[in-house]
Amino acid sequence: MTKRLAFLGPAGTNTEQIAIVHDPDATLLPFPSVPAVAAAVDSGMADEGVVAIENSLEGSVTSNLDLLIHESNLFIRHELVLPIQHLLLSKPGTKSEEVRVVYSHPQALGQCRSYLAKCFPDAQLAASLSTSAAVEEMQSSDVPAAAIANQRSAELYGAHILARHVQDDPNNETRFVVLAREDHPPTGKDKTSICFNFEHDAAGILYSVMGAFAKRGINLTKIESRPTRESLGRYIFLVDLEGHREDPVLKEALDEVKAQVSLFKVFGSYPMHVSSAVSKS
Amino acid sequence: MTKRLAFLGPAGTNTEQIAIVHDPDATLLPFPSVPAVAAAVDSGMADEGVVAIENSLEGSVTSNLDLLIHESNLFIRHELVLPIQHLLLSKPGTKSEEVRVVYSHPQALGQCRSYLAKCFPDAQLAASLSTSAAVEEMQSSDVPAAAIANQRSAELYGAHILARHVQDDPNNETRFVVLAREDHPPTGKDKTSICFNFEHDAAGILYSVMGAFAKRGINLTKIESRPTRESLGRYIFLVDLEGHREDPVLKEALDEVKAQVSLFKVFGSYPMHVSSAVSKS
Repeated sequence: MTKRLAFLGPAGTNTEQIAIVHDPDATLLPFPSVPAVAAAVDSGMADEGVVAIENSLEGSVTSNLDLLIHESNLFIRHELVLPIQHLLLSKPGTKSEEVRVVYSHPQALGQCRSYLAKCFPDAQLAASLSTSAAVEEMQSSDVPAAAIANQRSAELYGAHILARHVQDDPNNETRFVVLAREDHPPTGKDKTSICFNFEHDAAGILYSVMGAFAKRGINLTKIESRPTRESLGRYIFLVDLEGHREDPVLKEALDEVKAQVSLFKVFGSYPMHVSSAVSKS
Repeated sequence: MTKRLAFLGPAGTNTEQIAIVHDPDATLLPFPSVPAVAAAVDSGMADEGVVAIENSLEGSVTSNLDLLIHESNLFIRHELVLPIQHLLLSKPGTKSEEVRVVYSHPQALGQCRSYLAKCFPDAQLAASLSTSAAVEEMQSSDVPAAAIANQRSAELYGAHILARHVQDDPNNETRFVVLAREDHPPTGKDKTSICFNFEHDAAGILYSVMGAFAKRGINLTKIESRPTRESLGRYIFLVDLEGHREDPVLKEALDEVKAQVSLFKVFGSYPMHVSSAVSKS
C-alpha cells in the first residue's frame, strides 16, 4: 500500500519538497498546521508526518519541539535535511521599489532578516502560516506585496521572481523529522532523541546526566533547553545522542538517567542523516 | 545627570514598561529595533538599553541572543523580570466576531497561540515589530482587526479592550537584560552570562566544561544552544552561572574553560533577580 505522508501545506512548502524526496511514491496529504499533521498520524489518517525541527541559521523550530514535548506521543522515525533556497516573489508587474509588505513564515523572515533590513527597510513584515500561504497572501494583498518562498511555489502559483538567494547566509539547511506511531529498528548508524527535566532546579543533576553518557563514550550531538511553562528559569532539556535506544550500552545509560530525573521521554531512535545525501530507508 | 535609557519603542511596549520600573527618573529613548537599541548604547547616545531575553512560555528571544553573540560588545549590567498581561485590543466599535486579522509581536502571538486557535480560528496572524506597533497597525487596518498588547498601550492609543488575560498560561513572565558599556560591580549575589563553542564538534568537551563549574560547586542557572550559522549541527552554548566573574573561584573556572574552547565571550556579571521584586541598584 502506498504510504500516506502528512505535511504542512498547502502544496509548495519546503516541507512538501522534503516529503517528496523522502518518498516519491507516497500519497501526500497537506494539513494546515503542524499540530494537525501530528493529529493525522496519531489518528491513523496518515502513516507518517513530516515536521521541521531545526534550521542552521535560526535554530530550533521551538513550537514543534514544544509539540513533541507536551502534546504528542508520536515517535521520530527518520531525520531529513533540506538545503533551503529562498526567493522573493511578487505578482507579475509589481516592482521591487513599490513593495510595502513582505509575507512569509516567521522562520523564513528570520533567515532573510539582514537582506530585508537592507533592501526593504520600510516594508512591513507579515507572518504567514507557511511559505506557500505567504504566496497566496501576497497575491491577494491590496497593497504592493512580496513573499519569501521557494522555487516550487513560484511555479505552482505563477508568481514573478523578484530576487533569488535572498537568505542571509548560504549555509541554510533545515532538518526535518518524520513522525510515526513507531520509531525505526536499529540500522547500526542511528540517533536517539530524548527529553527530561528535574523536580528541583539542580544544575548538578544535569552534569550527572551528561556523565551517564560521557562515561560510556556516547556522543551528544545536540543539547537544547525549553521552558517548562511553569516558571521562569525552569527548563526541559532535549538531547540527541548517537546510537539506538535498543543498543545495550545506550539502554543502560538511559535507564541510569531515568532514575535521576522527573519527566523522561524518548522521542525515538532513527537512522542518522549523512551529509550531502538525504537519509532514507 | 539623568540616565538615558534606550528601549524598543514606540511608547507602550512591555520593554518601556520594565524600563520605567527599572529607573523611573530616566530619560526614555525609544528605538525602532533591538539592534538600534544596542547601537545607541554602543555609540554613547544612551547610557543603557533594555532588551527582552527570555519568556517563561516561549523560551529565549533568539534574535536577541544572536545579537549578543554575533553583533554586540556590550555588557549585561542588570536583569529584570516583568509579569506579562496580554490584552486583546480593537478599534472602538469592532466586534470580536468580525475580527479577520490579529496583529502582535511574534512572541506575543506565540504566548496566545491556544487562545487564538480556539477563539479566532479563521483570523490571519500578522507579525508586528512590537506590541505597540501592532496597535498602530490594527488601528490603520482596512479589515476588522485586533491587536495583542498591554494595558499601557490600550490607554496610550485609546483602544477598545475586547478581552483581558488572553495569554495561554498565567505563569507568563519575561526576563529582560539591561545592556551597558560596562557590567556591574560585585554585590555578593550575582550572575554571570557567558557563551562558548568548540573548534571541533566534541560533545566530551561540553561535559568537561560543565565539570569545571560542577567541581567548584558553581551553579548553572541556564544552558542553551544556538546555531553557529556555519553548518547544521554545530552550536554555540550560552550558560548562566551563579557568581561574579571577579569572584576568585568563578574566575578560575572561567580561565579553565577558556583554555578548552574556541569562541569564548563573557556577556557580563550583574545582580541576580530575586523573585517577586524587580532587581535594581
